[in-house]
Amino acid sequence: MQRKYSAVAVVFANCADRYVLQGYTEPRTFDQMLADAQQVEGLTGIEVIGGWHINDQNQNAVVKQIHDAGFQLACVIPEIWANPKWGWGTLAATDPGIRRDAIDRIKVAMDLAASTGCNHVSPWPGHDGWDYVFQTDYIKMYDWMLEGLEECANHNPNVKISLEFKPKEPRMHIMIDSTAKALLFVNTINKPNLGINLDVGHANMGGETLAEAVALMKRFGNRLVHLHLNDNYRATDDDMIPGSIHTLEWVEFFYWLERTGYDGWFSLDIFAYREKNKVAVAREALAWLETFAAAADRIDKQEAEAIFASGDAMAAQAMLRRALFDR
Amino acid sequence: MQRKYSAVAVVFANCADRYVLQGYTEPRTFDQMLADAQQVEGLTGIEVIGGWHINDQNQNAVVKQIHDAGFQLACVIPEIWANPKWGWGTLAATDPGIRRDAIDRIKVAMDLAASTGCNHVSPWPGHDGWDYVFQTDYIKMYDWMLEGLEECANHNPNVKISLEFKPKEPRMHIMIDSTAKALLFVNTINKPNLGINLDVGHANMGGETLAEAVALMKRFGNRLVHLHLNDNYRATDDDMIPGSIHTLEWVEFFYWLERTGYDGWFSLDIFAYREKNKVAVAREALAWLETFAAAADRIDKQEAEAIFASGDAMAAQAMLRRALFDR
Amino acid sequence: MQRKYSAVAVVFANCADRYVLQGYTEPRTFDQMLADAQQVEGLTGIEVIGGWHINDQNQNAVVKQIHDAGFQLACVIPEIWANPKWGWGTLAATDPGIRRDAIDRIKVAMDLAASTGCNHVSPWPGHDGWDYVFQTDYIKMYDWMLEGLEECANHNPNVKISLEFKPKEPRMHIMIDSTAKALLFVNTINKPNLGINLDVGHANMGGETLAEAVALMKRFGNRLVHLHLNDNYRATDDDMIPGSIHTLEWVEFFYWLERTGYDGWFSLDIFAYREKNKVAVAREALAWLETFAAAADRIDKQEAEAIFASGDAMAAQAMLRRALFDR
Amino acid sequence: MQRKYSAVAVVFANCADRYVLQGYTEPRTFDQMLADAQQVEGLTGIEVIGGWHINDQNQNAVVKQIHDAGFQLACVIPEIWANPKWGWGTLAATDPGIRRDAIDRIKVAMDLAASTGCNHVSPWPGHDGWDYVFQTDYIKMYDWMLEGLEECANHNPNVKISLEFKPKEPRMHIMIDSTAKALLFVNTINKPNLGINLDVGHANMGGETLAEAVALMKRFGNRLVHLHLNDNYRATDDDMIPGSIHTLEWVEFFYWLERTGYDGWFSLDIFAYREKNKVAVAREALAWLETFAAAADRIDKQEAEAIFASGDAMAAQAMLRRALFDR
Repeated sequence: MQRKYSAVAVVFANCADRYVLQGYTEPRTFDQMLADAQQVEGLTGIEVIGGWHINDQNQNAVVKQIHDAGFQLACVIPEIWANPKWGWGTLAATDPGIRRDAIDRIKVAMDLAASTGCNHVSPWPGHDGWDYVFQTDYIKMYDWMLEGLEECANHNPNVKISLEFKPKEPRMHIMIDSTAKALLFVNTINKPNLGINLDVGHANMGGETLAEAVALMKRFGNRLVHLHLNDNYRATDDDMIPGSIHTLEWVEFFYWLERTGYDGWFSLDIFAYREKNKVAVAREALAWLETFAAAADRIDKQEAEAIFASGDAMAAQAMLRRALFDR
Repeated sequence: MQRKYSAVAVVFANCADRYVLQGYTEPRTFDQMLADAQQVEGLTGIEVIGGWHINDQNQNAVVKQIHDAGFQLACVIPEIWANPKWGWGTLAATDPGIRRDAIDRIKVAMDLAASTGCNHVSPWPGHDGWDYVFQTDYIKMYDWMLEGLEECANHNPNVKISLEFKPKEPRMHIMIDSTAKALLFVNTINKPNLGINLDVGHANMGGETLAEAVALMKRFGNRLVHLHLNDNYRATDDDMIPGSIHTLEWVEFFYWLERTGYDGWFSLDIFAYREKNKVAVAREALAWLETFAAAADRIDKQEAEAIFASGDAMAAQAMLRRALFDR
Repeated sequence: MQRKYSAVAVVFANCADRYVLQGYTEPRTFDQMLADAQQVEGLTGIEVIGGWHINDQNQNAVVKQIHDAGFQLACVIPEIWANPKWGWGTLAATDPGIRRDAIDRIKVAMDLAASTGCNHVSPWPGHDGWDYVFQTDYIKMYDWMLEGLEECANHNPNVKISLEFKPKEPRMHIMIDSTAKALLFVNTINKPNLGINLDVGHANMGGETLAEAVALMKRFGNRLVHLHLNDNYRATDDDMIPGSIHTLEWVEFFYWLERTGYDGWFSLDIFAYREKNKVAVAREALAWLETFAAAADRIDKQEAEAIFASGDAMAAQAMLRRALFDR
Repeated sequence: MQRKYSAVAVVFANCADRYVLQGYTEPRTFDQMLADAQQVEGLTGIEVIGGWHINDQNQNAVVKQIHDAGFQLACVIPEIWANPKWGWGTLAATDPGIRRDAIDRIKVAMDLAASTGCNHVSPWPGHDGWDYVFQTDYIKMYDWMLEGLEECANHNPNVKISLEFKPKEPRMHIMIDSTAKALLFVNTINKPNLGINLDVGHANMGGETLAEAVALMKRFGNRLVHLHLNDNYRATDDDMIPGSIHTLEWVEFFYWLERTGYDGWFSLDIFAYREKNKVAVAREALAWLETFAAAADRIDKQEAEAIFASGDAMAAQAMLRRALFDR
């Protein structure tokens, strides 16, 4: 399997949180971010976030910059979360004007994706959810989300839409919170260009098994379109570099991506709050991913199938140790 | 809303765990358990667990005992988890003989449910999952689960089957782990007699919002068939009495049960490890449930709708405080 | 027990997070925040955060404003976390210049607290911790923290220092992460003016029992100095209004505060991201706290002692239901 | 560092849980367990659990069996949790007779440890805690625990007592729940023979960092006496084989054990519920531990110190990858 690596531009950015609002490191221009990206061997794609890296005025210029720097535009992340106007919801907001705006922002992203050959947008409805009890008519919220996503999918069948789920943050509860729930929505709409962006950190937060999430999306509609890669300690969305916490689950994940024929991007989505050297962040991330992928490639498929048939976990451990260390 | 309360017989049993295998309190006969149940005002149904309370030899006698004691049989829980033979899976085991046995055990439960007028079984595939990475062919496991459930659903369309999910325990990862995932499976099979048993503690463990789980099952197939009620501290399946930890979420839950037209049992599923007085356990549980239900009933529907429209969480808090305390 | 209620000024502020950096609601002046606070009956104290509400230039003017508005200054939160310079640590940073600066900022806060009669500061070393493995010499970090806190405690024995702990955020792991760990540090230094600020949300995140945290601080050094009050779903520091998620644990908490003779402030520490009406936020918070405190006051001490002696959890549930509802 | 590996005998046992009370695999005699242990190269010690593997009648015979099989007795785990009589507490039970019994059981274990040259017992007060609110006089419970532990420590100063903590299970909240809390108790008593048994899975459940727990015990009293090794998914005490889930944290853990001069046992504490081949379980566990320890040994101490001084997490990642893979 030849892997295409990309990075959400935020990997190379100055990152803030609710305490340090100006960010931990120096402000960085998009030029600086691209210059850093160019120093990362193996990185061939860039994702941009609406409201942070692009807007209606600069979007074509930014994409040209990306192309000129030698990168493909891997994905456009629509501008539906980096602005207070979305705080009470986007596609599923109670305010019909906001719902309309959110649909429009996704269509704008789709148009950019279409005109630049990227053909892929990934909306993340992180504000569509609830904080407190008795605040929400859940069923209306579902209906609005379904209607909005369907309208977007119909807007341009040639542009893929990969829906990103997350259990919580910024809302205390995000409506589309797991692989299974994303599938419920996507399969109810059932359009060929509508699928899922698996942010593996979001799945980890939710107690999911990464390889199993891949299998689930394969079996129930073949919906995996895109990957956002990072690692965390399971409790929160730490957005640390892939491989810094888990190891064996990554190998299984790569094995199942290959087994199910995934051919999309492997995109870094990291918030390197305190790391001043962003090039090192991306390099270390790719080094781990290559380590895991190589181990997955070394696994003998017949041996793996025999283990699956027996369920022998200790044989699996031995196989994994060999795959990682017997080179 | 007139609520029908039942209890899984385990509420009145001596409960064990992996450290204290003989159980914390004295061994108790089924007679003693029923005698205790009779002292709980408002309790009108009993659920029995295959392998613990019933087997092929005694099942008709046990149901007669239940009826003679003045209770309805609320649900039969098939014998697919209380025996080591199921340790490596039931409907989705790699061993075809075990899969066949599991289907047969569910059919036996269905036949009992049919012959006794209960017409309801609730299989819990707690052993169908995985512990270690690289141990499982997830897709085959899904297929087997789907085939098995479908065969059971076809066995007798007059008997409702409510599938119970849980994130983990006994397997480190249980395959059907959330409301959304249960819906994926149930809706793929799509039989009118196949739905879901919501164990609210399992939903709490998984970070779900109880009222939202009810709404989700309503919107995506109208699949809520049965309820198992208990409470926990969110991290594990503590099986404590309902209301002992959470309060407001229960009120919202009752509100949405009524709003979506739930008319099934409200069944206690508690492991009272260290409580010697099992009557008190059930009484306290019902007292909390009645408290929450009464509060939900006192909520003005127009006021609630207005809050849903505005999303005003503070207005919701004030409304809840009134509903609970202004009597 | 007469309770003194205060609020960290952030309760009345526009709150941001890492996605919506400008905050969810309109920018608000300190004047506006105080004007809101004045509308909250029962609120008599205000806490200010160094770097957000005060700095070396305006601090005396701000305190005068607080006093003029009819409030006491309840606490000064030293400026050691709201600036990128602290990102790699404060009292326990590897950089000796930063450690010196952090000590100085706490002393500046202490001097302000002394000169204004508040006599209380609450440092929160949220940046003293680690994100990745193998990044930290933990023992040196402990020594630096101990030295820094001791120097601060010696600076002015008339000013109380309440150390605030938290399991994580902003660091993935914060060094002082629990009541017990805070006690380890505070008791090693062992100065009468050094104690603990219990942020109950931080304790909830860490799986602690609130009443037990109070008991622990009583038994091991009598170290509880201050309270920060909010609520969460246990997984993260949601900073929601007290009582919005839990109920019974609050009653037990109030009971133990009274039992152990707590006589400090009951201070709201809420991030009301999406609530535009900040007055309602504080009012609802106080209404819940008064509800729980009144229930705690209604509990018969002899009955409680009898339950403690028997461990009878069901009797405790009945007692709590009476205390909450039989008025 | 020459590592001494041992195993709690339960590694080779038939394991049960609350659903499958008879255990998942065949019943196994102690002879079979020892015969299995003999097939595990590198294993030189065995731990026994009072109530499961030893009792007052057979204890000398069992120890002789262990010695005859070529093993040292690594630790005696006192009989204070595997019997319903302890369900409401042991050293901190409200019943003074139970407290006396618990002290006696620990002394019996100490006497056995003394007479057999093992000189080490590890009490785990897993039942000393609480399930429901308002059930417990926490301060009395602390006092009883302190008194009981002190009496045990005084019983024979030549026998080390390593106290084992755990956040929860079997009690919903266990009183001694973290490294820091164990240190609070142990340091208050302050006897040279009283220290801590770090069950790394219990620390993982509690969100601790393993290496940091080692550092904490070094700095605050030099209290680390013993290790129980296993792995889990962080949420619950899965007791899986070490290395099956985490990798880098194990390397850091081994590095800090060496750095702080740990010279005790590395003892496996695994519940291999569904693994029929117990020899494979122990072999795989040791293979991972040796892998991590070798990586820790390969780390250049000067390089590590330089990283600690800089806090450079990406340099740490590169160093770890080299240590694991450049052999």
